[in-house]
Amino acid sequence: MADKVILTCALTGSFDTPSKSAAVPVTPKQIADQAIDAARAGAAVAHIHVRDPETAAPSMDLALYREVVERIRESDVDIVLNLTTGAGARYIPSPENMQMGGPGTTLCAPEERVAHVLELKPEICTLDVGTMNFGEHAFLNLPDHLRLMAKLVQEVGTKPELEVFDIGHIVLARKLIAEGVLTGRPLFQICLGIPYGTDATPQNHLHLQSQLPDDANWAAFGIGRSEFDIVALSALCGGHVRVGLEDNLYLARGQLAPDNASLVRRAVQIIEGLGKETATAAEARAMLDLG
Amino acid sequence: MADKVILTCALTGSFDTPSKSAAVPVTPKQIADQAIDAARAGAAVAHIHVRDPETAAPSMDLALYREVVERIRESDVDIVLNLTTGAGARYIPSPENMQMGGPGTTLCAPEERVAHVLELKPEICTLDVGTMNFGEHAFLNLPDHLRLMAKLVQEVGTKPELEVFDIGHIVLARKLIAEGVLTGRPLFQICLGIPYGTDATPQNHLHLQSQLPDDANWAAFGIGRSEFDIVALSALCGGHVRVGLEDNLYLARGQLAPDNASLVRRAVQIIEGLGKETATAAEARAMLDLG
Amino acid sequence: MADKVILTCALTGSFDTPSKSAAVPVTPKQIADQAIDAARAGAAVAHIHVRDPETAAPSMDLALYREVVERIRESDVDIVLNLTTGAGARYIPSPENMQMGGPGTTLCAPEERVAHVLELKPEICTLDVGTMNFGEHAFLNLPDHLRLMAKLVQEVGTKPELEVFDIGHIVLARKLIAEGVLTGRPLFQICLGIPYGTDATPQNHLHLQSQLPDDANWAAFGIGRSEFDIVALSALCGGHVRVGLEDNLYLARGQLAPDNASLVRRAVQIIEGLGKETATAAEARAMLDLG
Amino acid sequence: MADKVILTCALTGSFDTPSKSAAVPVTPKQIADQAIDAARAGAAVAHIHVRDPETAAPSMDLALYREVVERIRESDVDIVLNLTTGAGARYIPSPENMQMGGPGTTLCAPEERVAHVLELKPEICTLDVGTMNFGEHAFLNLPDHLRLMAKLVQEVGTKPELEVFDIGHIVLARKLIAEGVLTGRPLFQICLGIPYGTDATPQNHLHLQSQLPDDANWAAFGIGRSEFDIVALSALCGGHVRVGLEDNLYLARGQLAPDNASLVRRAVQIIEGLGKETATAAEARAMLDLG
Ligand SMILES: [Zn+2]
Ligand SMILES: [Zn+2]
Ligand SMILES: [Zn+2]
Ligand SMILES: [Zn+2]
Repeated sequence: MADKVILTCALTGSFDTPSKSAAVPVTPKQIADQAIDAARAGAAVAHIHVRDPETAAPSMDLALYREVVERIRESDVDIVLNLTTGAGARYIPSPENMQMGGPGTTLCAPEERVAHVLELKPEICTLDVGTMNFGEHAFLNLPDHLRLMAKLVQEVGTKPELEVFDIGHIVLARKLIAEGVLTGRPLFQICLGIPYGTDATPQNHLHLQSQLPDDANWAAFGIGRSEFDIVALSALCGGHVRVGLEDNLYLARGQLAPDNASLVRRAVQIIEGLGKETATAAEARAMLDLG
Repeated sequence: MADKVILTCALTGSFDTPSKSAAVPVTPKQIADQAIDAARAGAAVAHIHVRDPETAAPSMDLALYREVVERIRESDVDIVLNLTTGAGARYIPSPENMQMGGPGTTLCAPEERVAHVLELKPEICTLDVGTMNFGEHAFLNLPDHLRLMAKLVQEVGTKPELEVFDIGHIVLARKLIAEGVLTGRPLFQICLGIPYGTDATPQNHLHLQSQLPDDANWAAFGIGRSEFDIVALSALCGGHVRVGLEDNLYLARGQLAPDNASLVRRAVQIIEGLGKETATAAEARAMLDLG
Repeated sequence: MADKVILTCALTGSFDTPSKSAAVPVTPKQIADQAIDAARAGAAVAHIHVRDPETAAPSMDLALYREVVERIRESDVDIVLNLTTGAGARYIPSPENMQMGGPGTTLCAPEERVAHVLELKPEICTLDVGTMNFGEHAFLNLPDHLRLMAKLVQEVGTKPELEVFDIGHIVLARKLIAEGVLTGRPLFQICLGIPYGTDATPQNHLHLQSQLPDDANWAAFGIGRSEFDIVALSALCGGHVRVGLEDNLYLARGQLAPDNASLVRRAVQIIEGLGKETATAAEARAMLDLG
Repeated sequence: MADKVILTCALTGSFDTPSKSAAVPVTPKQIADQAIDAARAGAAVAHIHVRDPETAAPSMDLALYREVVERIRESDVDIVLNLTTGAGARYIPSPENMQMGGPGTTLCAPEERVAHVLELKPEICTLDVGTMNFGEHAFLNLPDHLRLMAKLVQEVGTKPELEVFDIGHIVLARKLIAEGVLTGRPLFQICLGIPYGTDATPQNHLHLQSQLPDDANWAAFGIGRSEFDIVALSALCGGHVRVGLEDNLYLARGQLAPDNASLVRRAVQIIEGLGKETATAAEARAMLDLG
């Protein structure tokens, strides 16, 4: 069991949260500044989405990613960058013709989904190894798309973090590992509480954990009110953790978190309460075989 | 724990199995005849897909369904009919434009997917309450489509059998129950071993079972070599069972089953070995609140 | 799930720990003073053994119990008293005649084991509902002895806290509940990590928890290095918690805890990190139907 | 997963079952004859207790063991012999003095408990690696007694079958393995349904199985109505199985088994239903590293 816990801060995500909390960072500068503060508070990894600075809508704009990445890299903190590749996977059938994407559909080619990763070469990017209903919409990550995305990002030296929302996603991940598509020691992120994936109970957490390959590095996170429960549970099970405004807006019932760093500090309180320590970015790199 | 076990025979399915075993029924007469034999062997429910009599490819043709249903209803056996609604849910993005269905796509409107059910009014039809990668392709069952399909089939008195392949599917099913979309005592089918859903281990079986609503009726099945293991496990856990050439072609390693009835007889051997009995169709109706 | 967590402090126990840490309280005054400090730090319940002031050996002396209890009751803190009944249960066969207790045997009549409870009427006393190897010795709690002890302590208004170290102990507890021997809403303490009971893994914790009656109040504790892991796990599972020098001498690897209150503060750090609060003694009484 | 399943027949045990079923063998000849019939029906191992031919009470008489063993060895069947060492472990405190064994106490020295094994050198003997309430009485198997018994039986070439009734028993077994007291690949028997050990649920079965050392050979059995459920569950989980009149008197509710062989045949029906085969005695020896 690791005594050093790698803490990822998921800064902003893609949900419609800026309308619910002014703390959610929107512009590249806001995202970068909160990443830097999160690093100072104990985060070793920054998980990054970008948003349109005008509308706060999720974006795939390379320029926005570039600005966030450069601002963080030019800062005086050291933090591992983890860029999402979750955008470009939504399919909403057109009411007139189910076989055509209707309004809200973002599904695009795998190459497009990883273009910012190929360009900016973060140490980690996410890879959602499963197809599911993500809320009311379909979230499509077909096996062949995943094979191509994995190949491309690994070629530029980026480690895919395998986001799994259910048992079958782990089955697929194991298949891709067995095929040799995913190389090196795998890194899993167990995502709990997102409808309609696995809900965030301790029983589900332990069950998904039991399905991982023996040599996997892994973290888990829970959304909403389960965020800190899952921090504690992952840490005591020997896993790593993630918090942030992407997953949860609150420090306590009715008490909005003022920023990402406040959520990081709360996670540190739990981790230290368990007699463990947060890993530095350098320690995280060594533990995850990055770079 | 029920001492009467409801045995469903899944006669033909939609996989490319006729090329692998001559025993897989293809024409409406073959399907009906094997259903009748399965009933004589101990099956209380016949789960039915239809195939193009010329090509053996899966079909949604109402005339084919009608012929199967009429042949069984006119026979001298009593068996509960369970028609699939799984067809019409496959989406394969076109290589040129991910937002358009390419070759192999069958996705169609929810109304079309249940048209044969509305017409033929079987006592049960399946409802796949989740979106997933089904092998290499996307299997799309969006929440709103499921709401509409559930409403329509329940209006004609058909009980949806909620096929779940993973934990998140049960989360969605519970949501639809809480919304009042699904009415009455729910009936679940735990589907194990289909990539990329949950694989067919006893641990996964018990875990999925633990997530069901307390008042649920449920069965489980495993595909391929796990078929009879899951028969035993479900029966001893107080659930119901399913076998058939849709799920498994073999009686033993290297020994093709000559027909569906032979698989049914094997399941009966296990059930009786456990000191239980197979339910008649009439008993199944009473246990499942059908009709 | 309770948002108020009842924190028990197990002050001294019966192990040979005073030789390993000067922090372990030995005299009645030391035990009472540490209980009072623990209450100030957040404990709602004090779990109490007594020791011979000269030798630090575990004792069953009523006068010692009386002094501890009076000192706490006369203090300005409010804390629920929980007296052990674990003493008087050790059997070590004589090498010459296995059917006679040899040196170290303490086994005595059930009436003797609860005499201090009947006299001092604490709100809670422990009841170890199982027989096991406790380290190298037999720890004998026969069903009929438990029936008598339960009857006697309940007659004076003391709630038995059912200490369970393994699955079979819960089976016996359920039996005693079904027989009507144990009345009211049961209170369980899941004891983890004591050889040769269940070891302190999250999997074992959840499994034992799953075996409890639905209406049970429950806590769990782990010994040694697992102490704080089990605090977090119990709290996030909706249970209550216990820490103290009976179970663990260290705040961190190599860092002896200076007193019980320091362990209590660490538990409070975890509980508050999870967004929960510690219950007061008055709140604990209401939650556990005491008095 | 083994496709060959080793089936043990537990012929008579030590419960007061002869008063409940005339089928329970009592005399050495009856026990040997039923063992021979069980072998013909598919059992590879005979688990043997002896009884006083006059009273049917359990006995530790070497002459009775010798007669059973010789009769089987001189027969024309090949079956592995597994002698119990469970006798001589009961402690019932005298009402006058808890520290002296009262009526019914059988506790004796470890050397006495294995004397028949040292003399008759069966290939397997049981070793109950835990102390517990066995019904209303204490069943004492202290660690030091187990160490001595293990040493003695292994010296004559007998493999101890480690009977475990709860999680903590497995903890102790792992300790004895780590100490080097138990040598070679360990053989476990998971005993389910005996009060007050683990009850015979599938969840408990899988949980205990998860606690075994990775390299263990293992079987499981359930008593009473759970007997055949546990046969199926063990076999499908890759374990071995046990049936017999020691554990269960019935073929079905209200239908007494006429002999042990009838229970063996029922187990074979289940095993073959699962597509597996029963091992011969010779195959069992190879799989368990006997002799
Ligand atoms: Zn994200
Ligand atoms: Zn089907
Ligand atoms: Zn204590
Ligand atoms: Zn026995």
